[in-house]
Amino acid sequence: MPALEKVAIIGSGNWGSAIAKIVGTNTARHTDLFETTVRQWVYEEQVDGKNLTEIINEKHENVKYLKGVELPHNVVAIPDIVKACEGANLLVFVVPHQFIHGICEQMKGHIAPNARAISLIKGLEITAEGTRLFSEEISRVLGIPCAALSGANIANEVALEKFCESTIGCENMEDGAVFKKLFDTPYFRINVIQDHVGVQLCGALKNVVAVGAGFSDGLGYGSNTKAAIIRLGLMEMRKFGQTFFGDAVQTETFFESCGAADLITTCNGGRNRKVAEAFVQTRKPIEQLEAELLNGQKLQGTLTAQEVNQFLKARDMEKEFPLFTTVYRVVYEGADPELITIDI
Amino acid sequence: MPALEKVAIIGSGNWGSAIAKIVGTNTARHTDLFETTVRQWVYEEQVDGKNLTEIINEKHENVKYLKGVELPHNVVAIPDIVKACEGANLLVFVVPHQFIHGICEQMKGHIAPNARAISLIKGLEITAEGTRLFSEEISRVLGIPCAALSGANIANEVALEKFCESTIGCENMEDGAVFKKLFDTPYFRINVIQDHVGVQLCGALKNVVAVGAGFSDGLGYGSNTKAAIIRLGLMEMRKFGQTFFGDAVQTETFFESCGAADLITTCNGGRNRKVAEAFVQTRKPIEQLEAELLNGQKLQGTLTAQEVNQFLKARDMEKEFPLFTTVYRVVYEGADPELITIDI
Repeated sequence: MPALEKVAIIGSGNWGSAIAKIVGTNTARHTDLFETTVRQWVYEEQVDGKNLTEIINEKHENVKYLKGVELPHNVVAIPDIVKACEGANLLVFVVPHQFIHGICEQMKGHIAPNARAISLIKGLEITAEGTRLFSEEISRVLGIPCAALSGANIANEVALEKFCESTIGCENMEDGAVFKKLFDTPYFRINVIQDHVGVQLCGALKNVVAVGAGFSDGLGYGSNTKAAIIRLGLMEMRKFGQTFFGDAVQTETFFESCGAADLITTCNGGRNRKVAEAFVQTRKPIEQLEAELLNGQKLQGTLTAQEVNQFLKARDMEKEFPLFTTVYRVVYEGADPELITIDI
Repeated sequence: MPALEKVAIIGSGNWGSAIAKIVGTNTARHTDLFETTVRQWVYEEQVDGKNLTEIINEKHENVKYLKGVELPHNVVAIPDIVKACEGANLLVFVVPHQFIHGICEQMKGHIAPNARAISLIKGLEITAEGTRLFSEEISRVLGIPCAALSGANIANEVALEKFCESTIGCENMEDGAVFKKLFDTPYFRINVIQDHVGVQLCGALKNVVAVGAGFSDGLGYGSNTKAAIIRLGLMEMRKFGQTFFGDAVQTETFFESCGAADLITTCNGGRNRKVAEAFVQTRKPIEQLEAELLNGQKLQGTLTAQEVNQFLKARDMEKEFPLFTTVYRVVYEGADPELITIDI
């Protein structure tokens, strides 16, 4: 009998908590495959004078980031990253991307030799020099393979067990099958594909398209136009992948939940669309709208548009990605938002 | 110098009028390719005691079906189908599908020998015995090739020149290029593909998916779930095409405006979604909702779900198309709408 897989979740925000509910349920269900206890690294905070980890372990609820949802009792919150990941074979990363590097450095030397990771962190680093997937960063620092999970998965809806799908991109299909057992439930349906690059690209680039869709809404253009922007955006996402990552990025990926479905959700609801709509209607600077509408949080779509533009500009390829380029020009160069239906 | 193409539009409803505006503009623009005058067959009706054709020819407005939009003056309304199509090389069909056969029979012997047709009529006939595309019906009766045009094209938005895209499926790419010149404008952007079968299939099957999306809205399931239903629906549309029409139906077609974009629009707005939402919320019979919400007009999505089900049942393949089958069972067999996220 092979040894049971020991699971650690690195992160405990809104999405990390929703995922802890799923993972905890599944390790308890598949006792032939997983050790039941799931360790979750929780960044320690005080809530009403008490440690968040203690609250989670006593009340089985993350009262700060996922209020009102009971977590499985086999999920154990641990404030020490080394203790949380000690000897773990399956590492689920679900932290803000700026913390990945530091956390991985602390984990080095403490994980099991046969460990595999999966990144639930959407997106990738894009600079003028090139791109780095978050899964690559995890892989590089820890020296282990890293898959990716992404889909049309608004955390609160997942936590309430509203039906949805998600995509796992995992080069090794055997590992992919293990991750499927870890995440798949009747209300959170997993498809496994090999294209982990496309899965992560979609998670970043969709936000740029959503800014364009928001312009269309702000201009009052109606549903034909918005559907055209979504479609052209999906095609530009694919072109970006296939141009800069070659055959690693598969056309089928864009039909998956991480592709078309997540793009649709993001362009219909979501903060990128909303702030872009307000940007067109009010002509206030993005920073001001972030302060007014997002409590000062940075908008992902405009940041990514800027990164993508630096990358494209360095390669003299702005014109080949007219939607991405137009979104950038409208937000950062004062171009007329109406160009969203003219220049693309 | 080759002879100029003579264009006739067969039909003058809401969509036919919006298209007449585009076609009339383009024949006047490309005088090297088209005869400027466009003849439009208009089913004669009385409006305030006057013939509709006379009103159109005097006011250049279809006051009944596209009020407030000026038609190009080179579009001439003709009440006699034979006179309208006499000697025409390019025939644009945009009539309700139940009239196709009778109209084609009247046209026989009056069109130019080198005539080509294009069908803007969405969908196809599906019975237990098999399927028949509307383009095939036109081809068969008139003995000429027939292409198809479909996309995320709500007629009133097109008439107001809101930017959108549309797809032409045309086996002969030379004819496709001619049709592109006839329809493409800066606000109505045409992609030509060869897969005319997929173009028409999408136009019919999307309505079934929209009924499923309406169930989801009626049940209050949120945007993750709806995106999943749209995605699974798109995949089932493709499977239907590739199972029953083989290689004629291309994967790329489902990324076109006729595929993903039209499906998105139809699942976000549209009567099929709306009536299905009301069906779940009120549990009134579909006929009653058609009377209350659609002035007694028949809902396309539920009719198509029924036809598709007869077709699948006759082949013992209901289980392989779980979304189409669930929509049918909910509407016609009293199944629980919640199955839309369980059985699919």
